[in-house]
Amino acid sequence: MDIAKEIQKIAQQAREASTQIARLSSEVKDRALGMMAEGLVEKKAFLLAENRKDLEQAKKEGLSKAMLDRLALTEVGVKEIAQGLREIALLPDPVGEVVKMWRRPNGLVVGKMRIPLGVIGVIYESRPNVTADAAGLCLKGGNAVILRGGSEAIRSNRAIGNVLQEAMEKAGIHTAAVQVIPHTEREAVEEMLKMEEFIDVIIPRGGEGLIRFVVERSRIPVIKHYKGVCHIFVDATADKAMALEICYNAKVQRPGVCNAMETLLVHQEAAPSLLPPIAEKLQKAGVELRGCARTRRILPNAKEAMEEDWYAEYLDLILAVKVVDDIAEAIDHIGRYGSRHTDAIITSDYANAQRFLREVDSSTVLVNASTRFSDGYQLGLGAEIGISTTKLHAFGPMGVEDLTTTKFIIYGDGQIRTS
Amino acid sequence: MDIAKEIQKIAQQAREASTQIARLSSEVKDRALGMMAEGLVEKKAFLLAENRKDLEQAKKEGLSKAMLDRLALTEVGVKEIAQGLREIALLPDPVGEVVKMWRRPNGLVVGKMRIPLGVIGVIYESRPNVTADAAGLCLKGGNAVILRGGSEAIRSNRAIGNVLQEAMEKAGIHTAAVQVIPHTEREAVEEMLKMEEFIDVIIPRGGEGLIRFVVERSRIPVIKHYKGVCHIFVDATADKAMALEICYNAKVQRPGVCNAMETLLVHQEAAPSLLPPIAEKLQKAGVELRGCARTRRILPNAKEAMEEDWYAEYLDLILAVKVVDDIAEAIDHIGRYGSRHTDAIITSDYANAQRFLREVDSSTVLVNASTRFSDGYQLGLGAEIGISTTKLHAFGPMGVEDLTTTKFIIYGDGQIRTS
Repeated sequence: MDIAKEIQKIAQQAREASTQIARLSSEVKDRALGMMAEGLVEKKAFLLAENRKDLEQAKKEGLSKAMLDRLALTEVGVKEIAQGLREIALLPDPVGEVVKMWRRPNGLVVGKMRIPLGVIGVIYESRPNVTADAAGLCLKGGNAVILRGGSEAIRSNRAIGNVLQEAMEKAGIHTAAVQVIPHTEREAVEEMLKMEEFIDVIIPRGGEGLIRFVVERSRIPVIKHYKGVCHIFVDATADKAMALEICYNAKVQRPGVCNAMETLLVHQEAAPSLLPPIAEKLQKAGVELRGCARTRRILPNAKEAMEEDWYAEYLDLILAVKVVDDIAEAIDHIGRYGSRHTDAIITSDYANAQRFLREVDSSTVLVNASTRFSDGYQLGLGAEIGISTTKLHAFGPMGVEDLTTTKFIIYGDGQIRTS
Repeated sequence: MDIAKEIQKIAQQAREASTQIARLSSEVKDRALGMMAEGLVEKKAFLLAENRKDLEQAKKEGLSKAMLDRLALTEVGVKEIAQGLREIALLPDPVGEVVKMWRRPNGLVVGKMRIPLGVIGVIYESRPNVTADAAGLCLKGGNAVILRGGSEAIRSNRAIGNVLQEAMEKAGIHTAAVQVIPHTEREAVEEMLKMEEFIDVIIPRGGEGLIRFVVERSRIPVIKHYKGVCHIFVDATADKAMALEICYNAKVQRPGVCNAMETLLVHQEAAPSLLPPIAEKLQKAGVELRGCARTRRILPNAKEAMEEDWYAEYLDLILAVKVVDDIAEAIDHIGRYGSRHTDAIITSDYANAQRFLREVDSSTVLVNASTRFSDGYQLGLGAEIGISTTKLHAFGPMGVEDLTTTKFIIYGDGQIRTS
């Protein structure tokens, strides 16, 4: 069978399964999630064995240490994946929730009811845990899912998919609701992106290259996230100790992630007293600073920042630093160079806090807290299927609720329209 | 200047204007809407004169009577357009609303705040009133809008655009927030659909041909609506008088619109007693019936329905009629042949009412009311920018609120992340 036909079959089966999955009660879904978790733990040995084959192949192909780390499954890792599914089971079920209901003058009672999106395609790299996480979240939201991981993790992903499907069969739910694409060819992704008849939305998770590849080829709407160029603006009235702690946390705690700080903006009045201690703390942790001219007058040992530094997502221990005249310049800078991901202000000024929250056009805007909180778990969404930096449908970290939409339900008693 | 460059300039200006428009207070926006309404009434003579030129040209080009009707502006029509803008001003402002707010265990207070989408492109046909309606709705939602109407209405649309911009200038708001594309070439639309850097969403309004043209070419997300194949299912326990009234209303009151009934499904137990009077009432109004075999045993004078009739959006006095075994067959039929637009059940059975509302996967599902209520005004959204039959972002009639999204706002007091 050729790949195009097989992908079409997978997509068609997902569409069929989605009708059943959409109508499942929360009880049935949550029991299935529990059985999926159990299955993973029971089949641990099989999963680790398949993962070892992926790792051996990856080593042969010379994948980087970082890539191998992301690819590796451990006994503890499998337990965590199972625990993740159990936590998804404990989340409230968004499907069927009536988010609003009102009465019209003619007596019609109109409501908006949450319903599943339908079929979701997830395209991702490396980490095999995404296979189970995404499957669990989509299922909880009443959706069928088609999973396409990286070729380097193909055996691990297929193994996880098989174990999940066995558990779903035991739980009596349609196994085509979770399908792992068994093909590693790029053609498989390209075919998947053409299935607008069967797939409702594509969620790519991975580097900017993967995401651009998907966006350029997809006929299906894509919920995407290019990069996180996150800013912290230290205002004139910032508490010094707080500014030190938050800047350090946002840059150093985990520099390789999208919600780490990449640019520090400091109010000109705060710069002389705050930049030196912040710089010292960061430099002790190995952070390279690249500053504007005013920054370098205060921090002579900082490198010179070039125009491209203001756009950079370093994902590394490097920080661009700029002294700004005031909050207006900070907000303008973020609008011009930022990626609409996550930005924070540190201030003691009430009006500036409110203004920053209102005017910064990013998916997550914080006052007096680390940018690292821009994350589904941290914000209390329960779990995260991804982050969107485009505004349509969802903006920011996305939880189960973002895998649903609403329809109008209308209770009448014979109303007809007269005009 | 070539068209591509000019469209880019328009899009770029819209993006710039959108930053100002997003931050306007409700008062300023509503005052501007009032002045726009006033401007249209004051410049009535100019608008009617420009519209007459369009009409003359259209007559020369042999446009149909229906097209000419849609194109024509009248004195009353201009007043109604102005009234529409005043009503938009009276709607609640969605921007800045915090739809939810919660506290995390670490003390962070997390909220979701409504914000504008940014720049909206509206592509539409004939009716010049859309120019003012869409401009008003987008502005109310804090968005800039780029309007591209049909070439046959170009003088009318430009005139309306000019009057609106004059009023906006008087009101002190950025006039590039409402721009009418002055080019009638198809190339102008094609260029517009490439401006993903400046335009956040495209809303096409018109026939299926226009919408498919837009979807195939757009790099920007499209909120779309192909067609309305709306069903009414008359259940075994339907009230006879109610079924008669609702079926008549849904088919005959305005057959040319997307929320008119196109297929009638009747429960086999109700068919012998209900089909004859329904058929009589509809046939008296000139409706042609096309029935399945079981229908034609009860209504021998009905034509035979072919497979394609179940998919048909007649937009005319034609109705496909099918007798079904039960509610399950009705729901399956709607799932297979419907367009996910609007479907209704007429029943006295509590469980069937609830089941139909839950299981029919359409944007608007009604019990005991006419499908004709699937409309922004009728549902109480205040005004309608369009209807979406795809699930992403919005599903069903869309009001001002659907021209916004939400961002996370977070109030902290020094929180940093430790894991």
